[in-house]
Amino acid sequence: MMKWTELKYETSSEAVEAVANIFMEAGANGVAIEDALDLENYADDGTGKYIDKENFDFIKEGAYVMSYFPETMYLPEILPTIQHRLEELPQFGLSLGANRLTYQDVSEEDWAEAWKKYYKPTPITRFLTIVPEWVDYEPKHEDERIVRLDPGMAFGTGGHPTTRLTLQALETIIHGGEKMYDVGTGSGILSIVSKMYGATDITGFDVDDVAVERAQENVALNPEVGTIPMYPNDLLTGVEEPADIIVANILADIILRMIEDAYRLVKDNGYFVVSGIIESKKEEIVSAIEGVGFTLDQTFQQKDWYAFIFQKVVE
Amino acid sequence: MMKWTELKYETSSEAVEAVANIFMEAGANGVAIEDALDLENYADDGTGKYIDKENFDFIKEGAYVMSYFPETMYLPEILPTIQHRLEELPQFGLSLGANRLTYQDVSEEDWAEAWKKYYKPTPITRFLTIVPEWVDYEPKHEDERIVRLDPGMAFGTGGHPTTRLTLQALETIIHGGEKMYDVGTGSGILSIVSKMYGATDITGFDVDDVAVERAQENVALNPEVGTIPMYPNDLLTGVEEPADIIVANILADIILRMIEDAYRLVKDNGYFVVSGIIESKKEEIVSAIEGVGFTLDQTFQQKDWYAFIFQKVVE
Repeated sequence: MMKWTELKYETSSEAVEAVANIFMEAGANGVAIEDALDLENYADDGTGKYIDKENFDFIKEGAYVMSYFPETMYLPEILPTIQHRLEELPQFGLSLGANRLTYQDVSEEDWAEAWKKYYKPTPITRFLTIVPEWVDYEPKHEDERIVRLDPGMAFGTGGHPTTRLTLQALETIIHGGEKMYDVGTGSGILSIVSKMYGATDITGFDVDDVAVERAQENVALNPEVGTIPMYPNDLLTGVEEPADIIVANILADIILRMIEDAYRLVKDNGYFVVSGIIESKKEEIVSAIEGVGFTLDQTFQQKDWYAFIFQKVVE
Repeated sequence: MMKWTELKYETSSEAVEAVANIFMEAGANGVAIEDALDLENYADDGTGKYIDKENFDFIKEGAYVMSYFPETMYLPEILPTIQHRLEELPQFGLSLGANRLTYQDVSEEDWAEAWKKYYKPTPITRFLTIVPEWVDYEPKHEDERIVRLDPGMAFGTGGHPTTRLTLQALETIIHGGEKMYDVGTGSGILSIVSKMYGATDITGFDVDDVAVERAQENVALNPEVGTIPMYPNDLLTGVEEPADIIVANILADIILRMIEDAYRLVKDNGYFVVSGIIESKKEEIVSAIEGVGFTLDQTFQQKDWYAFIFQKVVE
C-alpha cells in the first residue's frame, strides 16, 4: 500500500482556497478542507440531519487544509516554497488565522478516509443537492436533482458558502440555451449544474491541469449532462467568442485580472457572475466591475462571503 | 359602466408598499404600482424581451402608486386622512420622494388597462415565473413553473425586488413537508409558491380583510396547489402552534413588532425569512432579530432592498 505525507495547515476560513491552491501547485495529489463554515450548510433537511453536529468532531472556527503528497516526493525540497507562498497571503488581504503547518505520514487508506469524512450530501436549494460520489443517496422529492461529485481532489464541494452562493445565483439567471464560460472551474461543479439547468454551450477553464482532469472526472460522474469541454487556460486569455454568462468563483484578486476580458466577451444584457469574494474585498470588486461598464444586479451573502450577479445592461 | 376616481401619488420606491397600504385602508378597491425598480426584473429571457424597454413608457426613477375608489365614495371626506398618513411616512424612515398627490376620474375600462399594462411575466429563477392571470404564457422549458396572479388588487407581483428576493430565499430552504406562516400575505404569492415547492401546511395572515380575499382569489388561480387557509390577523398575535418557517415580506418597522413572536413560534433549527427591508433599516433589523436569538444565515440583495434568512440554531 502506498504511503503518503499529509501536510496540514491551520488557517482562516477566508484563506482556504488560496492555501489549497498553493498545495496543489506544489504537487499535492489531493486536498481536503475542513472549514468551520462548511458545517453551516450540512443543514437539517426537515426529515433528519445529515450530520449530528453534537457528536461530529468538527472544528468550530477557522479551517484546516490538508494536502497529500506521495512518498516519492521529498518534502524538505518543497516545504520552503510552500512556506514562502503562505507568508505572502496577507498581501492578498487573506488572514493566516492560526498559521500552523504540520505533517505526518499516512497510509492510502487513512488519506481516503480523512477527506471522505468531511463531505456529506449538501442541499443547495430545493432543486439541487450535491452528493459525494461514494454516498448512497436518493432524492427526497421529485424536484430534487442530484449532482455527484468526487470533491476530495479539487475545490468546490457545495458545502462552502462561495460555491453555494454561486449555484444560487446561476439558478436565478439560467433559463436555457445559454453559452457560458466557467473560469477556474475547479471541481467542475458550476459547469455540471449549469448544463443540468439548461445552459447548452459551456466551456470550463482552469489554470491547473490537474483541476481540469478532476473536473472531467466529475462530469463523467453525471452522465446525464453529457460532455463539457474544459481546457487549461489563464483566465479568459485568448478567448474570442462572446457568451451569455461568464462565471468565476475564484478569489477577488484573480477576478480583478479578468474584468476587462469579461466585459469584452459578455453579450449585451448578458451576465458576469463572480464569487469567492470576502467582506474586505467587496467594495473594491464591485467598484472595479462597475467601472468597466457592468451593472450590479443582485448580491448573495453568507457569513463573510459574497457572490454577485453583474449584468452588461444595454438599453 | 362604473366610474372610478384614480388617486395617484408620486413617491419613492421604498415607500410604495406603505403608500399602497394607506390607500387600501382608506377604502381603495385596487392599487397599481409603477415603480422604476419593477422594470429591472422584466428581464430578457434569452429568447426575447418581455418588455421593450426603449419603447415602453415607464418611469425611470421613483414610483407612482395609483389607487382606485368607486364614485360612490366621496373623496373630500377621505383625502385628509390619506394626506395625514402620507405625511407620517418619514417617521418610519421612508422617503416621500416627489410627494405629489393628484386625482382624476377614470372609467372601469381605463382602470383595468391602467394596471394591466404594468404587469408582465416575471422570471424569478429557472424554476419559477410569475404570470399575470390575463396573459397567455407557456413555460419555455420543463423546469419552469408558472404561478398565475391577479396582482392588481394587492401587493407582491414578483417584479418588485422584495418579492423576488423572498421567493429566492424560500427556494433555498423549502425541501418539503414544512409547516409555515406567511405573515402579511398580500397577494398570497409566497404561500402559493411555497405550497408548490412542497411546504404542506401553510397559513397566511394579513391585517387587511381585502388582501385576504384577494390572496384567496390568487390561490384559486393556481388550482394545483389546493387550498391554503388565510385569515385576517395582526401579525402573529394569538398564534400558538410552532412552525418550521415563518416568512414576512413587509416593512422593517412592522417586522420589528413580531420578532419575539417569531422566535417563540419557530421550531429549533427552523427559519425566519424577512424581506421588505431597505438599506437604511438593514442594521437595525439584523441586530434586533439576532438579539432575540436568531442567527443570520443568508442575505439576498437587489438595489436597496434586502431579504434575510435567519435560523433558530440549536446545537
